[in-house]
Amino acid sequence: MIKLIVGCKRKAGLSRQQFIDYWKNRHAPLAMKDPQFWSRVRRYVQNYCMPVGTGQFSGTPAWDGAAELWFDSVEEMEAAFSGRQTVEILVPDLANFIELQSAVFLVSEENVIYSGAVA
Amino acid sequence: MIKLIVGCKRKAGLSRQQFIDYWKNRHAPLAMKDPQFWSRVRRYVQNYCMPVGTGQFSGTPAWDGAAELWFDSVEEMEAAFSGRQTVEILVPDLANFIELQSAVFLVSEENVIYSGAVA
Repeated sequence: MIKLIVGCKRKAGLSRQQFIDYWKNRHAPLAMKDPQFWSRVRRYVQNYCMPVGTGQFSGTPAWDGAAELWFDSVEEMEAAFSGRQTVEILVPDLANFIELQSAVFLVSEENVIYSGAVA
Repeated sequence: MIKLIVGCKRKAGLSRQQFIDYWKNRHAPLAMKDPQFWSRVRRYVQNYCMPVGTGQFSGTPAWDGAAELWFDSVEEMEAAFSGRQTVEILVPDLANFIELQSAVFLVSEENVIYSGAVA
């Protein structure tokens, strides 16, 4: 199993809430309706970064969002992003809510050190 | 519940495997032995970024590692990083395997859109 982490800044002009709304309520359902893509996704998590007012973690976050997508292998991930519907509809939809040039793609191996109360 | 994502490059001079070994087998156990820190951690995941040889995700990753740490709240996270043992032992240990100036800290809200086979 591998995990793709995609970090990005939200599209200029969108508020944090507009960015979250679009990503959660428009883009995610679009991904789920793309059979060649979605059949290969084993787990999907969206992380909404937030500004922290005070303290050691204060400041504007480097990213506004971080997506996490699990696939069986690098080959399966590549195949997921190669389908016609994915290339023509799902990937272009990203431009509606993120700054494409800000996107960072990280292919990784996940190691769950400790899993407490969170499922 | 909030989730802290910490991205970083490995320390210059370390191989990818040395970086992973230190983080997994030296730093993680140190974190677990720090009661003021560890008692506040709800879940802890290490992600080892990997170079991909070919295809649309090829190239050197922007980060070598991404840690994910869940806490009950921003306040709990701040408290976790304020303990004496944490400040004097755990945080300084980071310099043994990461390039400190490369570290990116992202406080986020997690939204699990779909959870398949992965626990």
